[in-house]
Amino acid sequence: MGDATNTLRVLVATDCHLGYMEKDEIRRHDSFQAFEEICSIAEQKQVDFLLLGGDLFHENKPSRSTLVKAIEILRRYCLNDRSVQFQVVSDQTVNFQNAFGHVNYEDPHFNVGLPVFSIHGNHDDPAGVDNLSAVDILSACNLVNYFGKTVLGGSGVGQITVYPILIKKLQGSTAVALYGLGNIRDERLNRMFQTPHAVQWMRPESQEGCEVSDWFNILVLHQNRVKTNPKNAINEHFLPRFLDFIVWGHEHECLVDPQEVSGMGFHISQPGSSVATSLIDGESKPKHVLLLEIKGNQYRPTKIPLMSVRPFEYTEVILKDEPDIDPNDQNSVLEHLDKVVGKLLEKSSKKAANRAELKLPLIRIKVDYSGFMTINPQRFGQKYVGKVANPQDILIFSKAAKRAKGEGKIDDSERLRPEELNQQNIEALVAENNLKMEILPVNDLDIALHNFVNKDDKMAFYSCVKYNLEETRCFPLDLETEDGSCGEGGPCESSSDVTISSPG
Amino acid sequence: MGDATNTLRVLVATDCHLGYMEKDEIRRHDSFQAFEEICSIAEQKQVDFLLLGGDLFHENKPSRSTLVKAIEILRRYCLNDRSVQFQVVSDQTVNFQNAFGHVNYEDPHFNVGLPVFSIHGNHDDPAGVDNLSAVDILSACNLVNYFGKTVLGGSGVGQITVYPILIKKLQGSTAVALYGLGNIRDERLNRMFQTPHAVQWMRPESQEGCEVSDWFNILVLHQNRVKTNPKNAINEHFLPRFLDFIVWGHEHECLVDPQEVSGMGFHISQPGSSVATSLIDGESKPKHVLLLEIKGNQYRPTKIPLMSVRPFEYTEVILKDEPDIDPNDQNSVLEHLDKVVGKLLEKSSKKAANRAELKLPLIRIKVDYSGFMTINPQRFGQKYVGKVANPQDILIFSKAAKRAKGEGKIDDSERLRPEELNQQNIEALVAENNLKMEILPVNDLDIALHNFVNKDDKMAFYSCVKYNLEETRCFPLDLETEDGSCGEGGPCESSSDVTISSPG
Repeated sequence: MGDATNTLRVLVATDCHLGYMEKDEIRRHDSFQAFEEICSIAEQKQVDFLLLGGDLFHENKPSRSTLVKAIEILRRYCLNDRSVQFQVVSDQTVNFQNAFGHVNYEDPHFNVGLPVFSIHGNHDDPAGVDNLSAVDILSACNLVNYFGKTVLGGSGVGQITVYPILIKKLQGSTAVALYGLGNIRDERLNRMFQTPHAVQWMRPESQEGCEVSDWFNILVLHQNRVKTNPKNAINEHFLPRFLDFIVWGHEHECLVDPQEVSGMGFHISQPGSSVATSLIDGESKPKHVLLLEIKGNQYRPTKIPLMSVRPFEYTEVILKDEPDIDPNDQNSVLEHLDKVVGKLLEKSSKKAANRAELKLPLIRIKVDYSGFMTINPQRFGQKYVGKVANPQDILIFSKAAKRAKGEGKIDDSERLRPEELNQQNIEALVAENNLKMEILPVNDLDIALHNFVNKDDKMAFYSCVKYNLEETRCFPLDLETEDGSCGEGGPCESSSDVTISSPG
Repeated sequence: MGDATNTLRVLVATDCHLGYMEKDEIRRHDSFQAFEEICSIAEQKQVDFLLLGGDLFHENKPSRSTLVKAIEILRRYCLNDRSVQFQVVSDQTVNFQNAFGHVNYEDPHFNVGLPVFSIHGNHDDPAGVDNLSAVDILSACNLVNYFGKTVLGGSGVGQITVYPILIKKLQGSTAVALYGLGNIRDERLNRMFQTPHAVQWMRPESQEGCEVSDWFNILVLHQNRVKTNPKNAINEHFLPRFLDFIVWGHEHECLVDPQEVSGMGFHISQPGSSVATSLIDGESKPKHVLLLEIKGNQYRPTKIPLMSVRPFEYTEVILKDEPDIDPNDQNSVLEHLDKVVGKLLEKSSKKAANRAELKLPLIRIKVDYSGFMTINPQRFGQKYVGKVANPQDILIFSKAAKRAKGEGKIDDSERLRPEELNQQNIEALVAENNLKMEILPVNDLDIALHNFVNKDDKMAFYSCVKYNLEETRCFPLDLETEDGSCGEGGPCESSSDVTISSPG
């Protein structure tokens, strides 16, 4: 990769969750510091652009404070006199659906030196009458190139068309087709992947000096990754085989090293979040971002550790397996747990030796208390005030119920989605009351409830009713075609590859 | 004013209330269209800058949609290749309290051709832990120069220092000291005006070629203007006499022609809102903005009508005074009111003849129904759907209670503040329960309640308690000095004029 002018260099990060814990005295700056570090790495590595995989914001309606801080960081790092060394040759008005319709560095009134491209996640997904995301605010400011905003139910119900951003180096032949798929509810996307032609992947046309096969195809998406329950996650095998590289957002565990997906011909990198939003094992692993260098059809991935991230140590304890604990002596339990905290603190401080700034660590012990009384976690944590960033919830208690059934260990995947909607709420209500939902699907009502509560979207129920009425009116035969032709769970080449005229 | 290079040209507007009625199918674009018209007038008149008097946003936490639209408009009009013909010679880090600390057009990464200066109003006042206003978001984007953000209780409780932005034309000698006072609760500001040295007005020092007297002194503020109740409004005579020109925001009635204040030596212009947020007489008058051309110590005001504003006709009807109404025949009342609506519609359509775009008019009839039954306004309005912008509330009913007491007519000033906090809420509660409020002042609790409810500020009560505890701890003698030495209601030269070193 010695030929720098022909190498496209991209810094890849995701799930920055700006504003997470903004009211917490200790952790309020964490999300911003990590994001600023990401931007400074991009600056230092002189990448062509920064690519974000969604959930840049933690809240659907970020506070003024979070918006201001996000804008400040972007303004400081993205605006400078460096000249951008690539061009976007696709139809920019299709790629960037804001009022200006062009990539930000081409605006003559801004000095953009570090372009940022981002899709939305499930936290900052578009909502409301105008279907706007918080990322749209940054897009209006010309600080972020927001893409991958699919309009559901536009041309047809449950159909989406994914237009790539076609990126070419100014010098040399490296050409990247960047596909973005902002977060869609997993069930819905799953259903679409299993419906023929529901997802249309537009491909660049061959043009002089550039065959279709010359494009390096990247997809950025923000979904659950299949582990246990295939309904609420996306199966990697549903994705089209023409893709070369996939950036998987939403999953917070850092699995940044590209993994090959057998039989599909692409690799997946899962950078993971830059801030821990749940104190689970997956989040305690070191956080990284990815430097992706692409030259022609080849790429080189380099993982770069984030040094500003607050240290986090996690362990699990099964009280009944510990020989030094006397079940009749609560003090022996406390003493044991104090010892565990001590060890984690020691482990954390050893790691912290090579860090510039010392931050109080996050400590989490998952305690299987089968056969024991629980302990008040608040009281337990009091002596760690000033030593631990989360004294109030160091301990979390669980019972070995699932383990008893022979599952061995609770799968991480279930714990990796701590903030998701409890899909049972309306389902349970409907079941309890023996209601029949004939027009409004339970799932859509769940979404509406979620939007109403969490996103303060006062129109949520109205939109849900309106959408479903229209759907019912316009597509009376929809149910018949929706079964689709693909077997469930299996790989499914879901769409034909449609061509687009690539400009210039 | 022939010498253009030595004339500072300022377009003055206020109370744009962006986002007002954003959920209303008919009126949702009104606030944005008026603001866009203001910007286009600024562009067309080639002013040096646009000066806004607060309440740029209607909501303290504007929706994503409102933020995006505001940013889009500002970006379109403020960023261009025109060169700015003035400089800010005061300490910009003091004037502009954002992370960048400079006037927006000096930022090398933006092409600002039309600078906008704005204070905050009561709708978009700073709140929350970081004391941020929605205007701070625009300031972070470098689209607005937000000034006049006084930090209360900073150096001392209830003391503020007003630093002017010192503006000089690049060529010639015209020099303007622009003072901004973002909205403060009227009672609090009143109290400060009556306390010696509580409000410090910083004056520019004499410097080579520019005496103190050479500065043209403008103040922009956003407060109630005294009419009936002097406690909840600001008396013009409290303002310092060195001022030359005052832009009064908050009051929605357009009284844009500068009025001299006797004995004070300054003139006041009250541009009024650019969108009617309450259907009262004052808001039905034609809306204008002001072109203010300043040369040396002279100025020329030119009022410019806003043509995009939705037509609004207002009248009052006293049922018992109408000869064609039979008190025993409800139909005769309806017929009469229909006739009144018809006349107002006719009046409106005559005025609309010279407008480019036809907009459904707002119609409001205030009906004194003493001795009559009321009518259902919704039902009355049904036949005007598609003819009137507000069919649901054409009629508003009142009884002649006050008139009976011999006041003749209810003063407009009381009706001009339709959205203000009902200050009686907590007071009433306290009185009812015979509570004694010894530490928390009732007023502060009122504010906290208001912020909690209307601004979704979850920390409102906490902040109130914290602030008052600190105040109580630090200033045990505060009560003794607070009586002040000024007679109530009378003019009060509240502060000495302190000098600041005006930079090079």
